[in-house]
Amino acid sequence: MVPPTLLHDFERLLGPDRCLTDPGVLLAYECDGLTHFKVRPSAVVFPTTTAEVQAIVRACVKAEIPFTPRGAGTGLSGGAVPAQGGVLIEFARMNRILLVDAENRVAVVQPGVVNARLSETVRPLGLAYAPDPSSQTVCTLGGNAAENSGGPHCLKYGATTNHLVALEVVLPDGDVVRLGSERAFDNGIDLRGLLIGSEGTLGLVTEITCRLVPIPARIETLLAPFATIVDACRAVSAIIAAGILPAALEALDERTIKAVESSVYRAGYPANAGGVLLVELDGHPAEVDAQSARIREILLEHGAFNIEAANDPVHRAKLWKGRKGAFGAMGRLAPDLYVQDAVVPRSKLPEVLPAIGRICDELGLPLANVFHAGEGNLHPNISYDGRDPDQVARVVEAGRRIMMVCLEAGGTLSGEHGIGLEKQEFMPLLFQDDDLQSMRLARAAFNPQELLNPGKILPTPRACVEVRSAARKPA
Amino acid sequence: MVPPTLLHDFERLLGPDRCLTDPGVLLAYECDGLTHFKVRPSAVVFPTTTAEVQAIVRACVKAEIPFTPRGAGTGLSGGAVPAQGGVLIEFARMNRILLVDAENRVAVVQPGVVNARLSETVRPLGLAYAPDPSSQTVCTLGGNAAENSGGPHCLKYGATTNHLVALEVVLPDGDVVRLGSERAFDNGIDLRGLLIGSEGTLGLVTEITCRLVPIPARIETLLAPFATIVDACRAVSAIIAAGILPAALEALDERTIKAVESSVYRAGYPANAGGVLLVELDGHPAEVDAQSARIREILLEHGAFNIEAANDPVHRAKLWKGRKGAFGAMGRLAPDLYVQDAVVPRSKLPEVLPAIGRICDELGLPLANVFHAGEGNLHPNISYDGRDPDQVARVVEAGRRIMMVCLEAGGTLSGEHGIGLEKQEFMPLLFQDDDLQSMRLARAAFNPQELLNPGKILPTPRACVEVRSAARKPA
Repeated sequence: MVPPTLLHDFERLLGPDRCLTDPGVLLAYECDGLTHFKVRPSAVVFPTTTAEVQAIVRACVKAEIPFTPRGAGTGLSGGAVPAQGGVLIEFARMNRILLVDAENRVAVVQPGVVNARLSETVRPLGLAYAPDPSSQTVCTLGGNAAENSGGPHCLKYGATTNHLVALEVVLPDGDVVRLGSERAFDNGIDLRGLLIGSEGTLGLVTEITCRLVPIPARIETLLAPFATIVDACRAVSAIIAAGILPAALEALDERTIKAVESSVYRAGYPANAGGVLLVELDGHPAEVDAQSARIREILLEHGAFNIEAANDPVHRAKLWKGRKGAFGAMGRLAPDLYVQDAVVPRSKLPEVLPAIGRICDELGLPLANVFHAGEGNLHPNISYDGRDPDQVARVVEAGRRIMMVCLEAGGTLSGEHGIGLEKQEFMPLLFQDDDLQSMRLARAAFNPQELLNPGKILPTPRACVEVRSAARKPA
Repeated sequence: MVPPTLLHDFERLLGPDRCLTDPGVLLAYECDGLTHFKVRPSAVVFPTTTAEVQAIVRACVKAEIPFTPRGAGTGLSGGAVPAQGGVLIEFARMNRILLVDAENRVAVVQPGVVNARLSETVRPLGLAYAPDPSSQTVCTLGGNAAENSGGPHCLKYGATTNHLVALEVVLPDGDVVRLGSERAFDNGIDLRGLLIGSEGTLGLVTEITCRLVPIPARIETLLAPFATIVDACRAVSAIIAAGILPAALEALDERTIKAVESSVYRAGYPANAGGVLLVELDGHPAEVDAQSARIREILLEHGAFNIEAANDPVHRAKLWKGRKGAFGAMGRLAPDLYVQDAVVPRSKLPEVLPAIGRICDELGLPLANVFHAGEGNLHPNISYDGRDPDQVARVVEAGRRIMMVCLEAGGTLSGEHGIGLEKQEFMPLLFQDDDLQSMRLARAAFNPQELLNPGKILPTPRACVEVRSAARKPA
C-alpha cells in the first residue's frame, strides 16, 4: 500500500496531470501485452526528466515501496507489470529526441521515444535505426533497451544490444550513472551490455545513445506462397545454407494468412497457401539482384507456387502489411491473444512446427504461427477468451508444452520478448543453479532490496527444484 | 607467497610439465605486451580442461592466493600481469577447436585457440571469424574475450562482443556457469555481455561459442599515399560522410612507413609519403566496384598521390604486410615499444594528431602513428629503452598527456586494448564516482575477495580524487 504522503509528494513534484491514482484509470496499467498477469499499481507517475526519475525513485526507496518502469506496455512477457504493486513509472511522456549527429551516425533520445519515430526523424538524412519490433509504431526505445528487443530486420542487423552504444541510467538507489560510450565498449566493465535486456530489473534507463545505419541503396521484398508451412521452412534452411543472409526472412502459416486476409491488414496473400515466406533483401542493387535471383531459384525448388517481387515503397509496404498486422488481425478472432517466443535451431523448424500443432489440437486451441523463420524464432499464437478460466488453463498448459518441445529440440526460452513473469519458472530447465545464482548476484549488486521491478526473470531457488521435477511429465 | 603444499597439489594435478616454478622460467611471464608493469608470478600452471581450471581455482581460493588468467600475453594494458603475485593460469595449451557447425555458422572453441587458427580452420567451408587484432597470429580467443578485442575489420563487423554468443566460465569460487546462448541473447540477464571485456576480472572463460561469417565474394584493398597524415585523415572523414562503410580503413604515418619499409615487413609503401591509407572493401563484386570508384575519387580529391588497388590474395597480403607488421618493425628501433589506444571522434583526427606530435616533440620522444582511422581509434606509439629510467618517465608522461588531449577532444580511454593496469588511474577522468562504484559492485558480485586478477581496471576511490586534481595540470 502506497502511503498518502508519498502520493502527495509525487503530486507536488509532477502536478496532478502526471500522477494518476484513480482506480478506474489505473486499470489500464495492470498488464502489458501478455494479459495472463494482472496487478494494479497504486499510482502511475509520468516523469519527463532524469531529475524527476531520481526524485521518484528516492521517494519510493525512502517509503520502501516497489516501483516498476513501463514504456508503451507492448511487452509480451509481463515485464512492465507491477508484480508486487506499488508505483508504476511510465516513461511515455519522457519522449524527446535530444540530438541527431549524422556525421558520427548516432542519435541521443529519451526512453519514451517511439521506435518508429526515430527512423522517421532521421530518414531525411539517409539514416535509420535498425531494430524494428512488430510493435514499432507504438513501442518505446526504453522498453526496447529493457527487453533487448528484436524484429524482422535483426536477422541481418542484430538485436537492440548491438545498436545502443551508451545509456544514462537511474540506479535503484536514485544515483545516476552513464554506461558505455559513443566511441567504444572497451572502457571498463561493460555495464551497458549488462543493463540491456535486463528487463528493467537493474536500473531505469533515462537516456539512450543509438547507433544509426545508412538506408540501403536498394530494398526488394519477395512474397512466396507454399502448400504447407513445413515446405516454407525447408526453403528457409536452404536459403541460409546457400550463404545468403537476407535482411529479413519471415513466415506466416495458413491460419495467420486467413486472419490477415479477412482483416483490415489484407495484404493479398494467396488464399490457397498453407504458408508464405516474406524475404527482404537490401544493399547495393547488383548484390540485391544477384541474391534475389538465387533465392527465387531456391524458393521455386522448394515448392513455392510463384514469387511476387516488390521494389517500390508502396508495393513493399503492402506485402509487409499482413506480417506487421498479423497480431492485430488475430484480435478479431477472440478477445485475447497469447504469443509464445521460443527459439529453435532453424534446421529443426520442419519437425517442431507440426509438434506444436499437435499440442494445440490436443488441447482444443486454435494455433496460428507467424515468425522470424531466419532465426528459428517462433511466435506460435493462440486466440482465446481470458474470461473463461478453462480456456486460460489450457492456454497456459499449451505454452508450457510448447516450451518443452522447443527446449528438447535444442532451443531456448525467448528470442526477443524476455522472461518477465511468464517464463521465470522455466528458467531452471535452461540454466543450472549456479548459472541462475550468478544472475541473482548481478541483480543483487544493483538492486539489493528488489524494490525495482520485483519478482521478474529469476525463479526462487525452491521453484527450481519443483520445475525440474515437473518437467519430467510428458510434453 | 604461494605455499609449497599448493604447488605440490598443482604438480600432482597437472604433472611437472604443466606447473612451472623455476624463477628463470617465470621471468617470461612477468609482463604482457605493455612492458612498464612487471610482476613475477610464483607459479604458472597450464590447464587443458575446465575441470582442471576449477581445481586450480578452488585450490587458490582455499589457500587465499591471487590467481590471474593469461592467454598469449599479447595484451597492451597489463591485463595478464599478476599484479599481486600468486598463480598465473596460462590457457595457451587449452587450445582445441571442439566443434564447427557450418549450418548454424558457429564454432565452439577452448580459450587458448589462436585467433587466426579459427579462421584458417573454417576457411574451406567459406566461413571466417571476423575480429582480427593485429596480433591475430598469436593472440588467443580467450584473451580476445577478456579484452573485447577489436582489429581493422571491426569497423564493419563490430568488436568481439558482437561475435561471441555463449561462454562457459569458471567463476572465482570455482563454480562453472554457461552464459548466453547460441540462439538468442534474450534469456535472462546478459552475463555474457558483462563478462566480455571485463579483462579477466569476473571469471575465467573456459569455452567460447563464436559466430562465423561468410567469406565475402570479393575483397579489394586500396593503398593511397598522401603528403601528410592530416590530409589522409580528412579523406577518412570524407569517406564515412559519403555513407560508405569500408571493411577496414587504416592509417600509417611517415615514421611508421619508414620503419616498415626498412624492415622485413616491407610492403612497398611510397618513401615520399607523409601518410598512407589502407582501405579494404568487401561484398558483392558490383558493390565493391561501385564503392571503390567513389572512394578513389574522394582519395584523389583529398590529395592522394595515386592509388594502388589489390584484388588477388597475394597482392592484398603485400599491402597489408606493412600494417600488420608495423609494431614488429618498430622493434628494430629500440628495445621497447609503448602503444597508446585512445579514441577520438573521427572528425577530430586532423587536430588531435598534430597535438600528439607536439607532446612527443616536447618530451624528446620518437612518435609513430598507425591506427584504425575509420573508428578514430589512435595507436600513437613510442620506441624507447626501458632500461633508462628517464626515458621511461618521459614515456609515461607522454601517455598521460596524450590521454588528456584525447579526452578533451571528446574521446575515450581505450578502443580495444582495455584499461588493465595502465589506465585505471585515468578512469576518474572519464567516469563519475557513481559510475565507477557500479562497476565495483558488479565486480564484487562475482569476485568479492578479489583473488581473481586483483588490482585491475578500477582505481581506489581515494585515487579518483587525486587524479581529478592532478588533471588540472596543463596537458
